Amino acid sequence: MTSIATNVPSALDLSHHINTRSRSRHPSPLKDILQFMAYEGMISLSGGLLSPFGNGTSMLNVEGLPHPSLFPIRQLSFTALNSSGKSGELIEIELSDKKEDQDPLAKFLQYGNCKGNDTLRNWCLDFTANILRPAYNDFEVLLHPGNTNAWSKVVALLCEEGEHILCEAVTYPSAQALWIPEGYFAAPVAMDGQGIRDDALEDVLSTWEETHPGKRRPHVLYLVSVGSNPSGVTMGAERRKKIYDLASDFIIVEDDPYFFIQFPDYEINAKTAAAMVSNEEFVTSLAPSFLHFDFQGRVIRLDSFSKTLAPGMRLGYFVANPIFIERLLRATEVETQDPSGPSQAIVLSLLEKWTMGGYLEWLQNLRLQYMRRRDCMIDAFSQHFQLVPAAKSGIPDAFGIVAFLLHSDGQGTTPIFSFVPPSGGMFIWVNFYLSKNPRFKQLQADSSIADPEDKFSGELWRQWIDAKVLLVPGWYYHPWQGEDKKSTKARAAAPETSNFRFSYSMPSEEEIQQGVKRFASVVRHSWEL
Amino acid sequence: MTSIATNVPSALDLSHHINTRSRSRHPSPLKDILQFMAYEGMISLSGGLLSPFGNGTSMLNVEGLPHPSLFPIRQLSFTALNSSGKSGELIEIELSDKKEDQDPLAKFLQYGNCKGNDTLRNWCLDFTANILRPAYNDFEVLLHPGNTNAWSKVVALLCEEGEHILCEAVTYPSAQALWIPEGYFAAPVAMDGQGIRDDALEDVLSTWEETHPGKRRPHVLYLVSVGSNPSGVTMGAERRKKIYDLASDFIIVEDDPYFFIQFPDYEINAKTAAAMVSNEEFVTSLAPSFLHFDFQGRVIRLDSFSKTLAPGMRLGYFVANPIFIERLLRATEVETQDPSGPSQAIVLSLLEKWTMGGYLEWLQNLRLQYMRRRDCMIDAFSQHFQLVPAAKSGIPDAFGIVAFLLHSDGQGTTPIFSFVPPSGGMFIWVNFYLSKNPRFKQLQADSSIADPEDKFSGELWRQWIDAKVLLVPGWYYHPWQGEDKKSTKARAAAPETSNFRFSYSMPSEEEIQQGVKRFASVVRHSWEL
Repeated sequence: MTSIATNVPSALDLSHHINTRSRSRHPSPLKDILQFMAYEGMISLSGGLLSPFGNGTSMLNVEGLPHPSLFPIRQLSFTALNSSGKSGELIEIELSDKKEDQDPLAKFLQYGNCKGNDTLRNWCLDFTANILRPAYNDFEVLLHPGNTNAWSKVVALLCEEGEHILCEAVTYPSAQALWIPEGYFAAPVAMDGQGIRDDALEDVLSTWEETHPGKRRPHVLYLVSVGSNPSGVTMGAERRKKIYDLASDFIIVEDDPYFFIQFPDYEINAKTAAAMVSNEEFVTSLAPSFLHFDFQGRVIRLDSFSKTLAPGMRLGYFVANPIFIERLLRATEVETQDPSGPSQAIVLSLLEKWTMGGYLEWLQNLRLQYMRRRDCMIDAFSQHFQLVPAAKSGIPDAFGIVAFLLHSDGQGTTPIFSFVPPSGGMFIWVNFYLSKNPRFKQLQADSSIADPEDKFSGELWRQWIDAKVLLVPGWYYHPWQGEDKKSTKARAAAPETSNFRFSYSMPSEEEIQQGVKRFASVVRHSWEL
Repeated sequence: MTSIATNVPSALDLSHHINTRSRSRHPSPLKDILQFMAYEGMISLSGGLLSPFGNGTSMLNVEGLPHPSLFPIRQLSFTALNSSGKSGELIEIELSDKKEDQDPLAKFLQYGNCKGNDTLRNWCLDFTANILRPAYNDFEVLLHPGNTNAWSKVVALLCEEGEHILCEAVTYPSAQALWIPEGYFAAPVAMDGQGIRDDALEDVLSTWEETHPGKRRPHVLYLVSVGSNPSGVTMGAERRKKIYDLASDFIIVEDDPYFFIQFPDYEINAKTAAAMVSNEEFVTSLAPSFLHFDFQGRVIRLDSFSKTLAPGMRLGYFVANPIFIERLLRATEVETQDPSGPSQAIVLSLLEKWTMGGYLEWLQNLRLQYMRRRDCMIDAFSQHFQLVPAAKSGIPDAFGIVAFLLHSDGQGTTPIFSFVPPSGGMFIWVNFYLSKNPRFKQLQADSSIADPEDKFSGELWRQWIDAKVLLVPGWYYHPWQGEDKKSTKARAAAPETSNFRFSYSMPSEEEIQQGVKRFASVVRHSWEL
């Protein structure tokens, strides 16, 4: 029961964004053969040409199809939490070739048609239509084996060597690790507490020819717009609308594994409300996907079950316009084929058992679990620092909350770091103010040190390690702009600052409290307060 | 209990074969951080940095790790045939977090370290060491999500734009569909009943500068050396040794999904022996892998569970020298990450339950099943054609068996096609002799027809379709040498011949008999006999 809006337009023809390599992928010439499969009484001695399942699935590949009678796996079953997430309340699900109300197990064990299982793909399409409500009507879905792979396919679809990819001022390293060897560069855009700023994006674009003479204008924006890795920030509806409207000549790639892990804002000295609400209220409370503003098919959404069910599934899906999906399918045929059959079978069976409403209930509960972890970490910060809303902190350009240390003599405070309390995802991105740090001042005064911010960060990080608390250094998330733009100055990064990433997804409450205590103790020592 | 031979050398440094793009992949800078994980009492607030399992697995990625308590899947079990393959004799296997003798289920549901599960990887390494017995000692294994993906990673490892890839005279289309848009060309090598001929390979190499002026010398040979797709031929030990020795300056990529589906030769008018033998005898009977001659690490083997267990698993493994494996791992980190966890869990559990001996027993039985199917198809040919060993057929350059049609007046015979009875895999590649075909002669005499072989093949194929039997046309397997080398003449293909591929893996015995009957009837009609 897909409810694709009928009062919205179709996608534009955006094929001019497709790169030379992707354009030169040809559909399998066997496509011509497909028509003959429907002939009644046809006997195929052609091997992998015909689908072994009479369900309209046509096999385009020419692998040798092993005979399903020779698959050793005969029945697959699993036990899962029910959609309320309460442990102890388990449901049992069985897959075999005997149940008539489901796709046979052998179907998941055989080669697929590279689009992914039809039933699961349609589930994802329905879910997208009903929950994300794209603003155009002919969006399509293609399954993929995780957002890492999805992003690699999107880069191979859109980008030409040497081009710049628009991204957040601090960006996801694995996405970059893919594009650097391919000869691409980052064009970072300044952020605030909601991620990329529309005025900064406008600025990058309007000054492009000046700042990057001879370089192709960027036509791809990559971002994690909910609970961004590493910044932890989530972009609200209004900002998205502005950025979409700016994007008339570029494609927005929305890498969105944390979409459903959005939760209420953190308030200093207040317990966050953690009640389950109606699914409708839950969905309405979420910052919308870029798809919701996309009336032209300019958004490629990378969706994943990694954070909502389990990363080991290696299963997710693209949502995009039909022209892009067709090209992505061509790449899928020669690069990965279908995602794992057992993964598809398990995810589909679970979603069908839970129903769409049950999945939303599961997601609600999940986000509350991560919200409690976030609260625990910020509460632990408040045990050691004085947390003040940025607006009241007196610190210019600070977003979110500023953490001050009370001087040991009780006389005055020093601002140490700021952070945006995440309203989604798993990360807190901490921005240190170094100007009052004695050791930093010493390094800064030493003219032989080219990048005192970088040197100080390395030292501070080692001190935490010695105190047995491990954070991720901020330099790992610097956008790659080339060998000559690595230092704090060359990157035009804010001087006298330094960043580290916290994550609250894995440690226990006790570990968070103990870890933050060690963290704070090193800070107090380093700042000599 | 790996039995890696200690009396064999280590791999050479073959890093000069690695292309620019692959060289510029950097290991994650977080590698520096790994050492700190071992610190006793370390608390990680760093998210995806540490392995959640204290088993030496180090996480290099910086994904947000979801907490395993929030994975809905709690227990996974499956029923499988036992290793003797007899239906009705089923075994049950359960995976959970409670069993101490196995990897916990949650481990398969979490992000991995991109190498694949350690236990499974070691199983594959042991299996390779014991069964394939490489001739060097430091080969390594890396899991991948199927040979399609593995090949795409190997091309991205070795090839530079515009270069030629050595391949069989008829080659696997999906491998080509990958390389054509990347700007690579095929350098096909003539084949006989054992695949690529060493003298033909030597010829291609020794005349390279003449035949391809200004083009880089090929340094990659791609082949399916057992039950090749489409030619169906298997390369024997002696031929492999010769080709390996010729390969001092190139890398052999052995795409080998059918390795264990090798079976005794087909003899005309004799029932093929189909008895189970000891595992040792079975292994000894197999044409060895190129690895067995590889004393320098010049072979990259692509192994897969697709044909031996089930394609839907999307699971296989590379075997190669440590330098190549390290680079392939770098690509895996940014392109796919680990193969599916459920697939890994199921395959590992099954292999452990069966044991290595059981798996070999399974494989023995499997190959006999496909052998029976091969026999059924060739027996069906013999119902309609007179099959004569090529050596006794009087047809020059024929390999295997020549099929003659008895004239309807009983006076004389006409040779119609030849084929190499496969001793492995799933395919029969049929080579038609067109010179006696009236319609072909007519086309040949018409000077307005540029490629009579091609035109005739198209017509013949349509006639089979009208008779409701579907084959794969041979042109699909022509190596891509560029837009100007597509016709029969330009490809320097044998004139007055045409090819089609049969497969016996999927149809039932009845379908094979009925399909071959229809096939033969069209042939008789077309040859006007």
